[in-house]
Amino acid sequence: MAVDYVYRVEQPHVPGQLATLCQRIAEAGGLIGDIVTVTIGRERSIREVSVEVRDHGQAKRVAGMLSQLDDVRVLSYWDRALRAHEGGKLAMEVIAKVDTLQDMRDVYTPGVARVCMAIAEDPALAHRYTMIGRTVAICTNGTRVLGLGNIGPVASAPVMEGKALFYRQMVGVSAVPILIDTEDADEFVDTVIRIAPGFGAIHLEDIRVPECFEIEPRLIEALDVPVMHDDVHGTAVATLGAALVACANANLALEHAVVGQIGLGAAGLGIATLMVEAGASRVVASDPDERSHARARERGIEIGSFEDVMAGAQIVVATTGQPGLIEPDHIRDGQVILALTNPDPEISPLVAERAGAAFAADGSMVNNVLGFPGIFRGALSIGADRISTGMKLAAARAIAAITAESELVPDALDPQVHAEVASAVAEAARSEGIARPERVPAGL
Amino acid sequence: MAVDYVYRVEQPHVPGQLATLCQRIAEAGGLIGDIVTVTIGRERSIREVSVEVRDHGQAKRVAGMLSQLDDVRVLSYWDRALRAHEGGKLAMEVIAKVDTLQDMRDVYTPGVARVCMAIAEDPALAHRYTMIGRTVAICTNGTRVLGLGNIGPVASAPVMEGKALFYRQMVGVSAVPILIDTEDADEFVDTVIRIAPGFGAIHLEDIRVPECFEIEPRLIEALDVPVMHDDVHGTAVATLGAALVACANANLALEHAVVGQIGLGAAGLGIATLMVEAGASRVVASDPDERSHARARERGIEIGSFEDVMAGAQIVVATTGQPGLIEPDHIRDGQVILALTNPDPEISPLVAERAGAAFAADGSMVNNVLGFPGIFRGALSIGADRISTGMKLAAARAIAAITAESELVPDALDPQVHAEVASAVAEAARSEGIARPERVPAGL
Repeated sequence: MAVDYVYRVEQPHVPGQLATLCQRIAEAGGLIGDIVTVTIGRERSIREVSVEVRDHGQAKRVAGMLSQLDDVRVLSYWDRALRAHEGGKLAMEVIAKVDTLQDMRDVYTPGVARVCMAIAEDPALAHRYTMIGRTVAICTNGTRVLGLGNIGPVASAPVMEGKALFYRQMVGVSAVPILIDTEDADEFVDTVIRIAPGFGAIHLEDIRVPECFEIEPRLIEALDVPVMHDDVHGTAVATLGAALVACANANLALEHAVVGQIGLGAAGLGIATLMVEAGASRVVASDPDERSHARARERGIEIGSFEDVMAGAQIVVATTGQPGLIEPDHIRDGQVILALTNPDPEISPLVAERAGAAFAADGSMVNNVLGFPGIFRGALSIGADRISTGMKLAAARAIAAITAESELVPDALDPQVHAEVASAVAEAARSEGIARPERVPAGL
Repeated sequence: MAVDYVYRVEQPHVPGQLATLCQRIAEAGGLIGDIVTVTIGRERSIREVSVEVRDHGQAKRVAGMLSQLDDVRVLSYWDRALRAHEGGKLAMEVIAKVDTLQDMRDVYTPGVARVCMAIAEDPALAHRYTMIGRTVAICTNGTRVLGLGNIGPVASAPVMEGKALFYRQMVGVSAVPILIDTEDADEFVDTVIRIAPGFGAIHLEDIRVPECFEIEPRLIEALDVPVMHDDVHGTAVATLGAALVACANANLALEHAVVGQIGLGAAGLGIATLMVEAGASRVVASDPDERSHARARERGIEIGSFEDVMAGAQIVVATTGQPGLIEPDHIRDGQVILALTNPDPEISPLVAERAGAAFAADGSMVNNVLGFPGIFRGALSIGADRISTGMKLAAARAIAAITAESELVPDALDPQVHAEVASAVAEAARSEGIARPERVPAGL
């Protein structure tokens, strides 16, 4: 797995020095990212150079090589990600600050009792007078985190905080990581149901197969707020969005296309299911684990071999966890290849396009961060009690619609993208009669 | 219960107009609070006048009476507390903002995976790289909220948000309301244990007797983070602080004093227990509910009648929920009377002092908001795995020490008060060997 390091380097401030430095980093196999000038003195400058290396060992070797350059000092170097996580990524902040005795009477005692009584008499008022209606619980047990597997709830916390960060920054929704210490589906479901009153929606994250396929429907059934397993549906929405763009670019209608899905884990089953729901002519999937086949067939997905999929599909999506699975020989001319395993895909987009693919992308481009913030924001904003298929399809179409020409997906860091997704999801919910005006949260 | 209203009033901007307005409010039985000038025009001004009234009906009558004044218009009027709660009181905020692709690589994918792996290898690193170590879960089932009784978890949310507000504003700790939908002690305990990995401490709030006496010790036993029921111990710490100040002012040593506790609910038992632990000569308590007597005796508290307590104690604390229970005749010369039932006490401080009490206070002055922020901040700041009796005593002594001459308690809105409490709690934990340096959270 690639690692980004920062090298804080002092060197003479004369022409050619930076070029020499960059050259030496290249020779050591490092990929240079941002270069930030920290100070420029009369004779010497200090810069912070970000470098992508293979691992910690290589990072150390790069530091050693730079130190050997004439008149260069490596003042320090560090792992960017670890440094960026110091102190965590979130904090609970106060909206109604208490500065005066009157403030205290209003938001604390005795005033708060009137607000409690108002909600006790009409529970829908909780959406007006508390944070509940604009707050999402991100619930995980850490049994399938990124490509890392079952690392448990505490070690998964940085991922959950990252999701919460996007919620707040992109769509203004508060999200709280809820790390649940059980691998048992019953216990997980019971726990979420018991804490659900404090949240406007439940975002499930990084729960392994097969428990995730049991947990999500049980929670949807039990709760009257939106519940969605992001690994299944968020990924599916982003992937369908990219597939729609690819279809448009290739003059292909999804309705006439065969979609191939390689791998029927959480993401794969979600993608294949949404492709069926989006009206693909046929969806054919392969997975060596036969237990996944029944689940797929129930959802209108055909089962074939890996070779069947590669030979028959115009659009191929791979979510196998097996880097390099797809060889250039497997690619047919004009195919769309979305090889989504992170961080190393089944086939690199460049290689796939050289082998004849019309369009190709990997998981760093087609990422569920395009989906979940807008989907939940849209659902919360109109008081929806669930996330329907129509809402997911609307999200995917919005992602496709806002994608710039020459791109396969839009920029996930652009808040406008998420606003469009939210708006499309809310509109779809309204047209399906899912909107509940009395549950629209104040302050969202 | 008193209600604070705001009247937005337009009237001629000439001398005497405000005096007339205030006079009319007084005649209607309203107590005037803040007066804020909104605009002053050439001839007319608009002001917002806060008025404490008895109930919504009286608020309406005040508006009617003001409207009848010559040339006065009541533009609008509203309940201050309800207005202050619009949209809730908290939001999750981002510390590590994502603006660039490099930011995304650092705090999300792929960088986040390295942070997860680091924590998986050494779980204590969660205190460095996540928000866990500086975040408190405020857990309630809403079975005993303020003086309102069992209003359930959702209606209790404004109180929990209020607690979280004080955590953030006074001591920089993030706190998350966790509303637990069960009245069963086993289910409550199981739920808290399962979500505990995401939090650095567990603050229990507004859980009824007797479940609260079972839930707290079981959670303390099961978890290796601080667990404290605020209604029991936060109130006890604030009360002991006030009692220490009263003793000093009355030239009375707690070690030679008899403390009387009227009412052995959650708060009363907590107060009486801490008085024993603080070294009071004797603690005598009364409660008509005999089931409370065994619990009290276990803790070194003697049981007597209400009359015994009033006749024998130099310091009397009442937490009965019965306004007016204490008559002036019950008071002995030189007694300290802390009548803490909210919002209407067992005897008003003024009446108690007229009847001969040396010092008297009610629950609006002696409030657990003086205790919990500093106690939990102190415990978190040194990585404590529990809250010891010594830490609670240190908190009470710190509250007493910072109280200004002529006051019984310090100003709860002064962050310095909470900083002193936190510092004393941390020092006590250190001296008991409870501090765990490897669990000190970054960013607190």
